[in-house]
Parts: sequence; C-alpha cells; structure tokens
Amino acid sequence: MKAFMDEHFLLRNNTAVELYEHIRDLPIIDYHCHLDPAAIAKNARFRSITELWLGGDHYKWRLMRHNGVPESHITGDAPDHEKFAAFCNTMQDAIGNPIYHWAHLELKKYFGFEGAITSDNAAEIYALCNSKIEKEDFNVHSLLKSARVEWLATTDDPADNLEHHKKIKEDNVAGVPKVMPTFRPGGALEIEKPTYAAYMKRLGESAAITITDWDSLKAALVSRIEFFTKMGCQISDHSLEPPVFDQTATDDDAACAMAKALKGEALSVKEINAYKTRLLSWLGGEYHKQNWVMQLHMAVQRNNNSRMLKLVGADTGFDGVSDTPFSQAIAHILDDMESRDSLPRTVLYALNPTADDMLATMIGNFAGRGIRGRMQWGSAWWFNDNKTGMQKHLVALANHGLLSAFIGMLTDSRSFISYPRHEYFRRILAQQLGEWVENGEFPHDMNRLNKIAGDIAYYNVKNYFGELK
Amino acid sequence: MKAFMDEHFLLRNNTAVELYEHIRDLPIIDYHCHLDPAAIAKNARFRSITELWLGGDHYKWRLMRHNGVPESHITGDAPDHEKFAAFCNTMQDAIGNPIYHWAHLELKKYFGFEGAITSDNAAEIYALCNSKIEKEDFNVHSLLKSARVEWLATTDDPADNLEHHKKIKEDNVAGVPKVMPTFRPGGALEIEKPTYAAYMKRLGESAAITITDWDSLKAALVSRIEFFTKMGCQISDHSLEPPVFDQTATDDDAACAMAKALKGEALSVKEINAYKTRLLSWLGGEYHKQNWVMQLHMAVQRNNNSRMLKLVGADTGFDGVSDTPFSQAIAHILDDMESRDSLPRTVLYALNPTADDMLATMIGNFAGRGIRGRMQWGSAWWFNDNKTGMQKHLVALANHGLLSAFIGMLTDSRSFISYPRHEYFRRILAQQLGEWVENGEFPHDMNRLNKIAGDIAYYNVKNYFGELK
Amino acid sequence: MKAFMDEHFLLRNNTAVELYEHIRDLPIIDYHCHLDPAAIAKNARFRSITELWLGGDHYKWRLMRHNGVPESHITGDAPDHEKFAAFCNTMQDAIGNPIYHWAHLELKKYFGFEGAITSDNAAEIYALCNSKIEKEDFNVHSLLKSARVEWLATTDDPADNLEHHKKIKEDNVAGVPKVMPTFRPGGALEIEKPTYAAYMKRLGESAAITITDWDSLKAALVSRIEFFTKMGCQISDHSLEPPVFDQTATDDDAACAMAKALKGEALSVKEINAYKTRLLSWLGGEYHKQNWVMQLHMAVQRNNNSRMLKLVGADTGFDGVSDTPFSQAIAHILDDMESRDSLPRTVLYALNPTADDMLATMIGNFAGRGIRGRMQWGSAWWFNDNKTGMQKHLVALANHGLLSAFIGMLTDSRSFISYPRHEYFRRILAQQLGEWVENGEFPHDMNRLNKIAGDIAYYNVKNYFGELK
Repeated sequence: MKAFMDEHFLLRNNTAVELYEHIRDLPIIDYHCHLDPAAIAKNARFRSITELWLGGDHYKWRLMRHNGVPESHITGDAPDHEKFAAFCNTMQDAIGNPIYHWAHLELKKYFGFEGAITSDNAAEIYALCNSKIEKEDFNVHSLLKSARVEWLATTDDPADNLEHHKKIKEDNVAGVPKVMPTFRPGGALEIEKPTYAAYMKRLGESAAITITDWDSLKAALVSRIEFFTKMGCQISDHSLEPPVFDQTATDDDAACAMAKALKGEALSVKEINAYKTRLLSWLGGEYHKQNWVMQLHMAVQRNNNSRMLKLVGADTGFDGVSDTPFSQAIAHILDDMESRDSLPRTVLYALNPTADDMLATMIGNFAGRGIRGRMQWGSAWWFNDNKTGMQKHLVALANHGLLSAFIGMLTDSRSFISYPRHEYFRRILAQQLGEWVENGEFPHDMNRLNKIAGDIAYYNVKNYFGELK
Repeated sequence: MKAFMDEHFLLRNNTAVELYEHIRDLPIIDYHCHLDPAAIAKNARFRSITELWLGGDHYKWRLMRHNGVPESHITGDAPDHEKFAAFCNTMQDAIGNPIYHWAHLELKKYFGFEGAITSDNAAEIYALCNSKIEKEDFNVHSLLKSARVEWLATTDDPADNLEHHKKIKEDNVAGVPKVMPTFRPGGALEIEKPTYAAYMKRLGESAAITITDWDSLKAALVSRIEFFTKMGCQISDHSLEPPVFDQTATDDDAACAMAKALKGEALSVKEINAYKTRLLSWLGGEYHKQNWVMQLHMAVQRNNNSRMLKLVGADTGFDGVSDTPFSQAIAHILDDMESRDSLPRTVLYALNPTADDMLATMIGNFAGRGIRGRMQWGSAWWFNDNKTGMQKHLVALANHGLLSAFIGMLTDSRSFISYPRHEYFRRILAQQLGEWVENGEFPHDMNRLNKIAGDIAYYNVKNYFGELK
Repeated sequence: MKAFMDEHFLLRNNTAVELYEHIRDLPIIDYHCHLDPAAIAKNARFRSITELWLGGDHYKWRLMRHNGVPESHITGDAPDHEKFAAFCNTMQDAIGNPIYHWAHLELKKYFGFEGAITSDNAAEIYALCNSKIEKEDFNVHSLLKSARVEWLATTDDPADNLEHHKKIKEDNVAGVPKVMPTFRPGGALEIEKPTYAAYMKRLGESAAITITDWDSLKAALVSRIEFFTKMGCQISDHSLEPPVFDQTATDDDAACAMAKALKGEALSVKEINAYKTRLLSWLGGEYHKQNWVMQLHMAVQRNNNSRMLKLVGADTGFDGVSDTPFSQAIAHILDDMESRDSLPRTVLYALNPTADDMLATMIGNFAGRGIRGRMQWGSAWWFNDNKTGMQKHLVALANHGLLSAFIGMLTDSRSFISYPRHEYFRRILAQQLGEWVENGEFPHDMNRLNKIAGDIAYYNVKNYFGELK
C-alpha cells in the first residue's frame, strides 16, 4: 500500500518518479485563469482560510450542497469557523473527488499540514492556517512567487481600462509574475441578452466611439484590441454556448440584427445566429492580425437553477455539462477563418468529455501551416480537471495527435493558492508517460522522455506565446 | 492468477477484501425492481430452472440470439431442457458479459454449484437446479429471505388496485420483506399513443372519477397518489423517451391537447410536448407534497424491431440505447419544479453512458436545500449494470460529486434470484474504494472507509426513505 | 520494466502470452480495405520507403502537420529523403500514438529493423529500407504472401469494370490472396452532389442502360450487383454522413427528387432524404437476395478544411469525428429492412466512440433469425484503431453482447505493409482475454479460450463469408 499522498503521490513506477523529478520545479505559466488583477496590483492579504478557500470557490460549494450543508454555511453569513467546519465535515467523505486532493496539496504546500482533513481536526487546521495567514508575508505576491509562476493571464472585458494590469507592470515588483490581460468579448456577442444595448454603450465609451451600428462596433472593437495588445495581451477567450455558424449569413444580416437589438426589438434565432456568425468570423481575423491565440470554450450549460441564480447570482455552482452536438458548427467556424487565411492559433475546450475524440480529431483538421502545435485541444477543463479526466485527455490526445506538442495545464481558477493543480497535472503526466515506457510501448530513452515531459509542462506554452512584452 | 470467481472475486487488494467483509452481509433494499407482487403474495414456486432463468429475462434472450439460437428455443415452445442447453451453450462463450457472472453467482448462492457452465455439463446443472427447485421450500418467500431483502419496491400502474401489496401487508409473514408500490403513470403521459383514451377510462374507474378533461385527470391522479401513499408508496417512476419541456406551454395548451386526444384527433409535436410538459410539472409538485422520491429514466430507444414486437411483444430484448441529447430538457424540467419550491428528491438514470458526466453534474445543479444526497444519479442501469459500467459510474460520481452520499444499487429485475447483483455491486464498490486507498489517494482509515462503504451499500438508501409504513 | 516492443509487446500475463501464441500465425482475412487492385494485378513495386509509407497515408500526414512539418514535405514535392527525415523527426515524439507502434511493427516485419525511430537514425533507416525495396522480390505479391493474407476485399465503384480483379483471378498466382470487390454505391446515393447527373451517366454506361428515372436506375444497379456477384463480391459498403430515414417517404417521392436532380434543379432536405431513404431501403433488399454482407460506416465529418480540399483534394487528412446523433435513423433503416424480411447480415461502424454503447446494443436489436453473429459492430475504426480504442471496443462488445461471435479485425488501409495491424489487434485481444482469466472472471480453460481467440482472429470471419468463389 502506498502512503497517503506522500512524495510519490500518483507516481506508480520508477520512470514516472524520475520524470516527475525532472519537471517538478519548472516554472508555471498559467495562460488561462480568473485571478483578480486588483488583488495582484495591491498585493492583497486574506482574512482567514475560510475566505481563501470558500470565499468564491463554487467547486467546493457544490460538494457541500451534496453533503446537506445549509446555504447559510456556504454562501450565507455563518461565521468563518462554522463554514470551515462544514467544509471539513464534507471533505472527510469526499473520497475520489479532485477537491480532496487539491485541498490536501494546498494544505501541505502553503501551511505545512501533512495529515488528512476530518471533522475532528477541523478546528486545529483552522487555527494553523489562520496563524500563517495573519502574518504579513502571507500575501498575493508571496503566494505567486512561492508557486514559481512566470506569467499568468487574467480574463478581462474589452471595456476594462486594465488599470490594475498597468499598475502591476509599472510597479514591476521583483519576482512577481507578469500579468497578461485576456480579451473576452462575450458581452459584444451576446446580442440576445437584455444587457446588450447597455454593454454597447459601455464598450463605446471605453473606445471613445459611439456605437450605433455594425461599423462603429467594429471600430470600437479594433480600438480595444489594439489597446489590449499594447497592454501585453496575446490571447482572447470565448464561451460559445453552443457554437453557431450560419453559412448563409452576411454582414448585412448581422448589421440588421444589431440595429433591431439596439432598438430593443426581439430577434429571431436566425438573426441572433447571423450576428454571432459574422462577428466571431471577423474577430478571428482581427486576432490573427495581432498574432493572438484564440480560445473557444464549449459544451457548458449555465445557470440551470434559476432560483439560486436569483438568490446568489451567476458562477456560484449551478453550471453543468451540455450535450448539444457542435462538431459541424465548430468546423464551420474554423474553416471560415482558415479559408480566408485568417485562422489564429486556437485552443478548443469542451466541458463534456464525450467531445474528447471529436475535438482531438478536430484540431487535426486545421493543423499545419508549418506551425508546431498550431491547433490545441485544451487541458481537461473544470469538472474534468480530475485524475481520470486528465488521464483520458492525455491518452486521447496521444491517440489522435501529437501529445508532445501540447501546451499543457492551466488553473482556470479564482484562487491564489490553486497552483498545486499544476503539481497534480505534472504527476499525472509523468505517470502516464512512465506507464507507456514501463509497458514497453515507448523506449526507455530518458533524454527524449525528459524533453517531452518538460515541453508539455512548461516549454511548449512558453514557446507558443514567445517572449512577453 | 486468481481462482475463478472465488470468495475474493473482483477484490484485488487487502483493503477491498476488508471492506467487502464489512458490507457483505448488510441487508438489501431494492428500491427499484419489476418483481411481480402477485408472486410474492401467493409465495409462488417454479417449474424449472428454465422458467426461473429464461422465463422472462430478455438480457439472456439477446445473448442467445447473438449466438444463433433459434427463437423456438428462446421465447418459443421448445422443451425446457433444450432451452436450457441452448443457454448453457451460449454461456460458455460469454466471456466478459455480466450475465456470465450473475449466472454463476446465482448458481453458487441458490444451488450450491461451484463450477463453470459449459455445454458439457448443461444436463448436470439442469438436474441439480431442478432437484432443488422442486422442493417445497424453494419458493419466493424463502428466496427473498435468504437474500436478506429488507424491503423492495415493485413498479405499478396508477390504476392498479394494489391487491397483492395489500395481501402481502396483511399476511405479514415473518421474514418476508416489506413490498412498496411505485407510482408509474406512463400511461397518463403518453398522449400520443392509440391506447390513451382507453387508459384514461381505466384510470378514471380506478379513482371513481370520470376523466373528461384536464381538471378531472388531475383529480383522478390526486386520488390515486393518495391511495398509493396509503398503501406505503414513497416513490414514483417515469420513463422519458426523451425528456421534453416546452417553456412556453400553458395548462390551457395541455388541456386543449387532451381534449383533442380524447376525441381521437391527431396531435402535433407541439401539442404532445405541451401536455407532457405541464402534466409532469404538476405531478412533480404532487410527489413533493407527499415527500416521495421521483425517478426519471432516460436515453432509452424502445421496440426497435417492429417485426419482433408483433411476434413476441414489448420488453423481449429489442430495446437499446438512444443518443438523442437531453441536457437542456431535463434541466428545464428540474428547474421548473425547483423554482416553484416543489422539486421532490430525485433519482436520474440514463441508459446511454455518454450521459454520465452530464448527469453527474446535473444533480449538482439542484443539490442543496440542506438535504444530504437530495439529488441522485442512479446506479449504472440495465445494459450498463456490468463491471466496467459500475466502475465508471462510481468514478464519475466521485469526480463530480459526493460518492459517499450515493443511495447505491437496485436490481431493476423481474427475477427472484437476481439479488446476487447486489453482491456484484458491493464487490466492485469495495474494490474501487480499496484501490484509492492502496494507491495513496485516500487515508487508510478503516472506520471512515467502513462508514462510507456501509452507507453506499445500505444505510444511505435506508435513510433516504426513512422508516416504512 | 518490459523491453521496448519485444515479442511480448502488449502481453502482460501468461495466459495472454499463451493465447497470442495460439493465434499469432493464423491467416488474415482483410474484409475491408482500400488497397489498389491494379497494383495487385500488376504485382507493383515501390520507389522508396517514402512512397511506401508516406505516398498516401493521411494518418501520417496529420501527425506531421501537428509537428509543424511544412506541406512541401508532406504532400508536396520535397525529395523523398527529406520527407522521410521529417517523418522520423515526428515519430520520435509520437509517444502514445498508434502510428508509432504500427511503424515499428512494420520496420521489424518487413525490414528487420529492431530499434526505435529517431531523427538521428533516419538516414540509416532510409538506406536500410530502400536497400530491401529495390530488390526484385520486394513486391505486392510477396508482401501479401508474407503476411499470410487468405483473401481481402477492395472497395469499388459499381461502375467499375473490375478488370484488375478479373486479371488477378485469371493469373491465379500461387500464394497470392483472393481479391473480392466491394460494392460501394455512394455515387448513386449522393443526389445532393453536383456530380450526380454525371455519375448516373457513367453508371448507366457500365450497365448498358440509359438511366433516366427511378426504374432505370434500379435496373442498372441490379445489373451491376449481378456483375459484382459474378466477380465474387459478397459485400457492400456505405458511408452514411449521417444516416437518414424518412418514414413517410415513398418511391414516388424518390422518383420525383431524382427527376429534379437529373434536370439540375436544387433539392430540399426532405427530397434528398426521401431519395436516400428509398434507395438504401431497396438496395438492402437486393444485398439480402444476394446473401451479401452490408457495411454501414457512420459518424464521420469529412473535408472540414475547404482550403486544403482545394489544394490537395479529398482523403488527405482533413476528416474527423461527427457528433450528430443517429440512433433513431439507423434503427429505422434496419427495421425497415428487417420488417420486410430483407435485412442482410450487417456490420455497423461509427467513427465517434461515443456511439460505442449505442451500436453495441443496436446490433442486439436485430440479432436473431438463428444466425450466429448475424449483426456485427465492426472493429474499432480509423482514429479509434489504437490500443485503448480496441480495448474499449472489445470490452463494450463483451458487456453488451457476445464477443466470441465477433468477426474481428480489418485494416481499412491503402498500404500493402499495414498487415501488422492484425498483429496489433491479436495482441490486444489476447491480453484482454488473458486479463479476464487472470482476474478470476473466466475459467482458465485453454481449450475454450483458444477457441474463442481463434474464432475472433480468423474463423468467425471465414465462416461469415463462407467459401469464396
């Protein structure tokens, strides 16, 4: 029996141990996360382990709800120590869940706690963590440094003035990672939402352009894209729920739909899709001009529980997996750009693992142009960011393409102590590579294997984005 | 090499052996099956192992058809010993099939046969089994007692008078499990079927209410729900093929559709969906009032072979997996009830394992209200009720939620000797938990592990339903 | 640690080793491939390992594109040795990819090279292979003989005159496998394509019947089916992208659609589907009359990259997995034939492994008629033809049906040295069977196990097609 989460955690053969040793201490590039740039700019500190762990983590909230914890102790106003006790009571039963592993990796790394979380030691852990947290050197900068984060990309609205990114850059604190903004223009695409007209106003103001029609929208977006580039941006992000592509839609159709929406008129599905088709198509070309990477997130079904949406808002643990097919739409979207020589390097993600083989082959349909790893199928995402989900992702990627060209892990997290997820990924990667070797499926050539492991853990993503400005 | 199906069958590490020891002899609660209450009421006996094994088991029939056995020896009138020989001839080749394991577990438990079924020993096994079956103490009551069944839930039509349930309760035979009826109002929802009007008449008669419209339908159903509750019912069941939910449908739309159907007029898809939407929505609220559990079975495609449907009827082995997407519809159905504070505790099942991750996250969307395990993703169902299907279910449940809150196994069976499927499940459960521990992914804390295993095997479902009336 | 790809490659227990020993040298029947009959007829030779490996293998091309190899070195006019070097440079990084294994199995079998492909030894391998290739006895006939191919089925157009098949038969070279044509009437079904009218002309000419309408089309097809039967054909093939079935369509609808298409008029989706429904329905009956096997390939999304389609044509590595649901359509297609007693023995394939459980149960819906293995779920196909894909296929087949009745592996290949894929399959099969035995899930009865393994590797497919004419 292996000891509980010791130094060989998830490593089950010697080659894996050796490979993990090689990649363990490589820097981290977190090219997609939801960290708050303001917190980085001001080097924030934390009230308690409850704030740090349970302040905004809807992964943990869902688990607590499954365990019958009342909402008062999840998003409500119960005292910190009671919330923490309710979390520990849930943890002790969370066998097989990735949060169980993440929480223990975080406790070990950031607080030096080596045991297992139970109801019985909840108070002890609470006291231990808080005694560290209250020290002045427990702050955002030191957390990022200790995780060896080289750079990270936050997720930002095109209308954002990026003041915090500016401050981080100007302050230029030694050891603090570079922070790249990500251009996520969901608000400009979501023409069906009641907030559309207001968003157009806000976007226009940020660009000092009054958005009244299709052309002024494009002008404002160009202005913001150029501003983002100036601020170091090299990446965009879209959540397509689901992807749509109407091959018959024209820019005129999109302009007409937009005019109706700005007047507050209701749109047909066809009009909505025409607008989304043409705007995304055009945006892809703009990203390509800037040599940005385009991320497309798919197969999510959000806000399933309208009662809780009203009570506690969006992004609070009520999103799930969608099973709506999308292989045709995504192929059309990519083909539309590629056939006009304007497809940016792209990372595709789906929340539904049933899309694994489809996406693993979809990136092959647009690989080429002499660019290694041009098209990427992104790391096992959100709910799939667990041991079996990551294994399945790595194996499917290897089956259908070139695993060695994979740009690897990201946190997708809102938490400053979630970087052990990279450790989790690196262990699973080392184990998978080692298993192939131990089974005689790949030669025991440690130079080659170290190269492959290191590329996936760090060097591929570093090269994919090049030197940051 | 492990010996063939010995006491450590499916248990591959010491922790698993220890855990299985702990849960092996716990009582069984079979909260969803298709046992015949009349057979329990009259304590039926059996003609032969052929009747017992092949009388109504369409799982076995399918396998025999794959093997080229003529229909005369499956559902036809060939002699019992010939049918049995044809089955054994199929079994000896059925490597990797769950029926192979179930059949051997049943032979061992009920007939003391320890070998492997082959063509050569078919006659010997036939004689051995029949020599036991012909004894007076080989009857339904003794079979249920020897399996330690605490209670079970049959599947019943709302129009059923539940006379057998009444007799079982009145007879109150020592050691015979309690038998709960399940309210399965499929006939009331299937407005598109030619049998609809006749069913409305039958349902009305059972409630002593003439069903002429939407209001009288609801009155009749309320009457039957109250009767079922009086008879001990705590659970309903729906087969949604596929789930539908029309957000624009009103009760008036449903009433109009119903009026047309009663007059024998053809309905549009929109009318059918409006009726199903509103009726299921209302039924969910009634279940909630009664504190019943609601079961929704999905992703089935029935009666694919119309020739055989005509020849041998429904439920004879011609149903399969559907791949129609349903994440949106099921979310709308649940959200509709939840937003009116009338969502009952619910168990979701899908026949297509591609829905695994979708359902595992869907239950998280409606978890909460301070009820542990409120929403359940039901045990690997029907075709998926095999070793890898159960493993995949347990792992996906653990990945996306709280495995420890799972209410566990059910037989879904028509056979009185299928209870070894619980043994099969418990072995697979023990092995999976043990594997996590042996790999260092969870602490070797046997108190906690025994608690988790026992909860999933027995105590969770016991608590979910509470003390039976 | 196991040695790299030694004699026990993929065999991890003694039972597997013993089983593989038993089936290793059985003949090969390749009932579905894309080999060029002209090359067999003229006993072609090869220019270089580059032509042999990279001349038409879009699997390898995709991998090279992922690795950033420019198109000049893939489908372009770079020198052979440079293309080969680019391929080896890709190979050394292709950990986990089936092409890595296939390439090494081929190097060992046909060229006696036992090492691992790297950039460093590319030139050495190139020289070694070419030194063998330039010898006179390195030709199509000797390659097929050394692989012990008993017979193979090419893929042919109904309008083809099968002259090469005729020559192969007449030449009757000792040791050269029989070569069966496959009837693949895609051109006759694809009424939506601009090439339809031209194809009708060509088809008519081959049958000496002028095709002007539905009846003359059927007459021409009957003529070609009879010709193919005379030439030894026992099998047809369709690529359904996706399957469609309109239950309301009549032959008159099909005839009307055809009349419009011949006049060059645009068709509605309903008209297209009516034509496809009725023509496939009728063709199935004709296949049944001839006692042919019908193959249906599904879940492919072809030509996703229109830019590359224009540049390098179809079948060059830009096809992928489709996620369009099709369980209803395929059930209707099969049921339509079965209910008219005209369903041929059928092999179903899907490129999307999410269809695995659906197809594994779909074949059960039409099993029977006293024919063992009547309905087949075909071998893990194309992208899924890798270690985990094959394992998953075997396990799903065993879970839901009778693995022992499976007709096994095919190459689906355009290459004359791809027969080691059968070795790959046989190793994986032996390992899976052995694993069940070693785990105590099936008795250690080597007679039975050898029978099962041999049937799947060779005898089932031999019996399925019977003695070739």
